[in-house]
Amino acid sequence: MNRLLDDLRIVEISAFIAAPLGGMTMAQMGAEVIRIDPIGGGLDFARWPVAKNGASLYWAGLNKAKRSAALALDKPEGRELARALVAAPGPGAGILLTNLPPLRGLDFASLKAARADAIVLRLLGNRDGSAAVDYTVNAASGFPLVTGSGGAPVNHVLPAWDIAAGLYLATGLLAAERHRSRTGEGQEVTAALADVMLATVANLGYVGDVQVNGHARPAIGNDLYGSFGRDFATADGRRVMVIALTPRQWRALGEATGLAERLAMIGPMMGVDLDTEAGRYEARDAIAALVARWCAGRTLDEVRQAFAGTGVLWGQFQDFRRLVEDDPRCSEANPLFATVDQPGIGRYLTPGMPLDFGASPRLPPRPAPLLGEHTDAVLAEVLGLASAEIGRLHDAGVVAGPNGR
Amino acid sequence: MNRLLDDLRIVEISAFIAAPLGGMTMAQMGAEVIRIDPIGGGLDFARWPVAKNGASLYWAGLNKAKRSAALALDKPEGRELARALVAAPGPGAGILLTNLPPLRGLDFASLKAARADAIVLRLLGNRDGSAAVDYTVNAASGFPLVTGSGGAPVNHVLPAWDIAAGLYLATGLLAAERHRSRTGEGQEVTAALADVMLATVANLGYVGDVQVNGHARPAIGNDLYGSFGRDFATADGRRVMVIALTPRQWRALGEATGLAERLAMIGPMMGVDLDTEAGRYEARDAIAALVARWCAGRTLDEVRQAFAGTGVLWGQFQDFRRLVEDDPRCSEANPLFATVDQPGIGRYLTPGMPLDFGASPRLPPRPAPLLGEHTDAVLAEVLGLASAEIGRLHDAGVVAGPNGR
Repeated sequence: MNRLLDDLRIVEISAFIAAPLGGMTMAQMGAEVIRIDPIGGGLDFARWPVAKNGASLYWAGLNKAKRSAALALDKPEGRELARALVAAPGPGAGILLTNLPPLRGLDFASLKAARADAIVLRLLGNRDGSAAVDYTVNAASGFPLVTGSGGAPVNHVLPAWDIAAGLYLATGLLAAERHRSRTGEGQEVTAALADVMLATVANLGYVGDVQVNGHARPAIGNDLYGSFGRDFATADGRRVMVIALTPRQWRALGEATGLAERLAMIGPMMGVDLDTEAGRYEARDAIAALVARWCAGRTLDEVRQAFAGTGVLWGQFQDFRRLVEDDPRCSEANPLFATVDQPGIGRYLTPGMPLDFGASPRLPPRPAPLLGEHTDAVLAEVLGLASAEIGRLHDAGVVAGPNGR
Repeated sequence: MNRLLDDLRIVEISAFIAAPLGGMTMAQMGAEVIRIDPIGGGLDFARWPVAKNGASLYWAGLNKAKRSAALALDKPEGRELARALVAAPGPGAGILLTNLPPLRGLDFASLKAARADAIVLRLLGNRDGSAAVDYTVNAASGFPLVTGSGGAPVNHVLPAWDIAAGLYLATGLLAAERHRSRTGEGQEVTAALADVMLATVANLGYVGDVQVNGHARPAIGNDLYGSFGRDFATADGRRVMVIALTPRQWRALGEATGLAERLAMIGPMMGVDLDTEAGRYEARDAIAALVARWCAGRTLDEVRQAFAGTGVLWGQFQDFRRLVEDDPRCSEANPLFATVDQPGIGRYLTPGMPLDFGASPRLPPRPAPLLGEHTDAVLAEVLGLASAEIGRLHDAGVVAGPNGR
């Protein structure tokens, strides 16, 4: 958390990962982000992982520092309140972030009619409006067929396309708001999840590889493409990733392992120049044969000691449990984290924004709201509704507070 | 490309993916981004994939729409030119984006001495300044050990942490520039690649899962965690991903396959409520047994026809070659792309920014520069150097133009 954007108000009508992450990124920089959900919660309200009481750790994780308003979006009066929240006055307001099909009155044209300088950020699946999610976009991307050893596709578990799309939305929101603050002009900004994938595959050179070289990158297990890097087993059954991308890292690997002389024999043996990345890639199985034997004779701790301070680029593989329980970076020793009481779930390690801004000191991370926690406050503060009117809306089932009341 | 940020100038001293992607995102929204490299190119200048002449498709992909200046950063005079380029006057200038260890005179304090409102975005590996790259951060994240079927770690091929970090940098840059335009205050913004990973793992609920539930998400192959989704083989040897996240998608799957009645038998058989995501996850093997037999009896085209217009959420797996050659989204039919002549490589499909801004029409994507292509222009335009002085700098080996001349 910081206060960099504390003059902005963003209304978010969203589900799942991308749009919620985009909104949370704004909230973690101080913006007031009002997530509007249907009464009872949206499509992602019970997404796994969940706590034993069914409360979603995933939902809590992606909605930190936001306010929550629960509105009957299936009723005209609920949609009208949502529209009024987006279109409410104020130089930093008038911004909607959404990945859901536009509800009546919440499309860009209607919002623009209600507020001439409205900004709408809209994430689509495909550009033509057809459905696509991280799983289907990933299947099309080419990556699952080169993940692992090849043959059957292997899906990523990290929803990387959603995360990239959410951060593109955050970037686009700030660019659009910058434009508005200079010109007074609002706009609709659209992004398709499929286009985020396509642009990324091409940015990394894989489209050119097919078109220019007639070549498609093969599956090579955990090897680093075009340089040296591979995973190795240690004597105590752990695994480490060892990499030599730069000339310095390559020299360090030879020195730290004491294998420099043997490694040097590989150049003439394989007929390659090991001072080039392409040469090390060509000779990777021979290099790995030596490094594998060296790692297999050492425990993880011995590997760590041998590499400490040498400039070798390496890392240990660990599961989520070891990450949380053993890695000091995943603890309150890291200013990124604090232990936060997440209402409805309990106390656990909660991250803030992974950027440190020198001009806006890091504040403690804030939890996610309860669903509907801020319904009444938002209706009063943003729309100026009196408490009698808010009571009527509750009675009519148009709005709900925490836990659906 | 668009012109949203055409009053900004950003100097980038970078290598690899994250910082170059952050800078390219600014360039694709119209900012003048001057990438400074050592004469001969930086650490990423030959990264794979490469064209047959050795030119890097990867480097070209991540530096589109930038200007390139080649300076002898190992010489005081070269570093002084770099510093002068960062500190040059102008309300939208004075911004450095970097992921490399600070060169003398290019740390934040020195830049601030040269320009009081300087903004520096600095990507670290770990917060303490120690080295970490996508491969090592990923090993620590927990994801490789739950990717695929479990047991041995499986690395992602998409450098997802780098991509997220690059987009966080873009977001941070715009937030810092917004702050400066309102207050006159510059700042240093730092991000650690490891913190991007840690925040993301926690945002998705996996840290809370360990701390609150004492549970770590297991490896489940290509299955969707906590709902129904799996990959299936078709009669013609292709594979498809079939998903039922929402109630509507679940109904559509039953209707489109004609399996609704059989699927309904699974609820009582397994003792679960198939109207819940958790119930469908619990019964996923039984559901998959029916869907697998259905898919195995149909070619990909027949699956496509059966699902068309039904609301079933599905996608085909395809490799990079099929993506480029067969997928209409990866072609000039998609406004994201144009065929661009990339100097030194050739003509191929090149993406622009995966966001469409209503207030700033999409312009054709621009290629990456040749290394040093804009050295002379930048020295003249930004620093006002006369051609005789630029000639002297060439003769002294302090600067170089395209192809090292």
